[in-house]
Amino acid sequence: MLTPGATIGILGGGQLARMLALAGARIGLKSHVYSPVADDPAFDVCAAQTRADFLDEAALATFAESVDVVTYEFENVPARTAEVLEAHRPVRPNPKILALTQDRLIEKQFVRNLGVATAPFADVSDPEALARAVAELGRPAILKTRRFGYDGKGQTKIAEGVDLAAALKALGDRPCILEGFVPFAREVSVVAARGLDGEFRAYDVCENVHEHHILATTTAPAAIGDATARAAIDMARAIAEAADYVGVIAVEMFVVEDAGGERLVVNEIAPRVHNSGHWTLDGAVTSQFEQHMRAIAGMPLGSTRRHGSKVVMRNLIGADADKWAEILAQDGACLHLYGKTESRPGRKMGHVTTVTP
Amino acid sequence: MLTPGATIGILGGGQLARMLALAGARIGLKSHVYSPVADDPAFDVCAAQTRADFLDEAALATFAESVDVVTYEFENVPARTAEVLEAHRPVRPNPKILALTQDRLIEKQFVRNLGVATAPFADVSDPEALARAVAELGRPAILKTRRFGYDGKGQTKIAEGVDLAAALKALGDRPCILEGFVPFAREVSVVAARGLDGEFRAYDVCENVHEHHILATTTAPAAIGDATARAAIDMARAIAEAADYVGVIAVEMFVVEDAGGERLVVNEIAPRVHNSGHWTLDGAVTSQFEQHMRAIAGMPLGSTRRHGSKVVMRNLIGADADKWAEILAQDGACLHLYGKTESRPGRKMGHVTTVTP
Repeated sequence: MLTPGATIGILGGGQLARMLALAGARIGLKSHVYSPVADDPAFDVCAAQTRADFLDEAALATFAESVDVVTYEFENVPARTAEVLEAHRPVRPNPKILALTQDRLIEKQFVRNLGVATAPFADVSDPEALARAVAELGRPAILKTRRFGYDGKGQTKIAEGVDLAAALKALGDRPCILEGFVPFAREVSVVAARGLDGEFRAYDVCENVHEHHILATTTAPAAIGDATARAAIDMARAIAEAADYVGVIAVEMFVVEDAGGERLVVNEIAPRVHNSGHWTLDGAVTSQFEQHMRAIAGMPLGSTRRHGSKVVMRNLIGADADKWAEILAQDGACLHLYGKTESRPGRKMGHVTTVTP
Repeated sequence: MLTPGATIGILGGGQLARMLALAGARIGLKSHVYSPVADDPAFDVCAAQTRADFLDEAALATFAESVDVVTYEFENVPARTAEVLEAHRPVRPNPKILALTQDRLIEKQFVRNLGVATAPFADVSDPEALARAVAELGRPAILKTRRFGYDGKGQTKIAEGVDLAAALKALGDRPCILEGFVPFAREVSVVAARGLDGEFRAYDVCENVHEHHILATTTAPAAIGDATARAAIDMARAIAEAADYVGVIAVEMFVVEDAGGERLVVNEIAPRVHNSGHWTLDGAVTSQFEQHMRAIAGMPLGSTRRHGSKVVMRNLIGADADKWAEILAQDGACLHLYGKTESRPGRKMGHVTTVTP
């Protein structure tokens, strides 16, 4: 177990790194932020800083030597980066999960091998394979690049009439998977943590609404049955245990309602703190950020108990954040701004949380 | 009104400055910490740092020019320091309150002039004046230096048999006041904020237990009647308005129970965030730290609503903080450690808060 005063190395300097650093400070942990982006917002709240490329091996080694454990705020950490860091210090969550979540095909196979349902999917890398997959899974379906997709990037819908070769070309003719359409009633996620000792604690399953492929709101708890919620948490636990995971993990799922009742389909795994867990900052006893820092430091996990009967988190995307003064004046609204110097359409600038007593 | 991205200059680098910086970051404010103590804990969480003496006028000027507004975490800011800073940037709360709270005699006269009750007191500077005061106020009474007292420092009890000249000498023969003994049933405090526009918002009156003259626990709400709580808040408001105060203020009071019911006596004013407001970090919608940053930035004040039916904050003094692992494992305990490198008896190392749902 690390002791207070220890330093956590964080790869990445965006809002997740920033909120991790802030949460670590609460319990006496220092943060050393490593990012190539000079004005990244996490640099404003950390004890030490490295501005270097993620492939700068000398900088990575010096960074790792100066900290007690390394974590990351994004799953697209290059394999070589993780390898260099691991030669010096523990990297948590262990980088096996990176290889797994960086590739949609491998991720889906991993989940399915645990006996957990996913959307139907097929490996497609050329128009012929795509044609066969479309014939099997039907239209509409979603074509996604296997690697480097997030917030709707790297994907396109295969509706009636869409030309398959053109669709593949639009995604850069990269290796893709085709996912069958899931007629879901709602999207939920499980944000949970697994400690170094294997202890597992989940927050209330929460419900997510996306707009333009970007998370718009999260509501905790999700409007699902207790048995479904328990099943969702069990799935997240199975995933975390199979990956020998340490830290906060988020598992996005679809809830399908059919004659048999509610059924869950795992959509995506995020090996990190997650936007759909931001509500825990104001709405739970321990935030997901502190929970992650506790887990990777080998400390006991904190209470995931929710405050109030309902918690709603709304993302502030692009110009939404210009309404900060109005939001500050709203009774009971908890505003979070990420300190980003430039606002762009689609960019996450902050969020606002409301706890209903 | 300052806008997100603005920089708050904070004089002092201790735990209050640290928690102010952390809270400012939540709403997109940067902090520039100024302290002469090289390893002060606030330096670990701020965007900019000045390590210089509080009387280094060149450093003060450069600091002030680099920020948008200046605040402070302690009331013993030298008058000249405030003067130099004010020549460059607004200082909030305005330094009039410093002159007032740095001198127990002036503070008590100010409070009494508002029609608010204080303990009986007398200005004493020599053994003769002290003898007259003791004859008037009776024994036991408390002899306190007019300036630079905190956490029980600079005070001594005048019990039966205590030699008056020796008591004055023990306090360095400095100007003192004698305070009559108040047979209080409990100690409470009002932590409240006044905005730049004059808006006033108070947290629930809370109850404090001191051990060895240092705050041990705070419980919100205090076990007092509603009318007493309203009266306490009205007193804090009168004080804040009379001082044209902007920011968070804490007013410590005694609750005396006699035949007429509960009666309040103001003990002390702290022109800053206060240890008895630490419970708001986990136990209220807006923490006192964010509230202070909002106020001095000219932003709207946040909700002071309490989470749960009861919130208890316990200070971790000296070796208490060594039990951090045990506390982390306690269900529902929210641990805060201040990142101090050296633990000493009597030193505030952290605190732990428990919210009862």
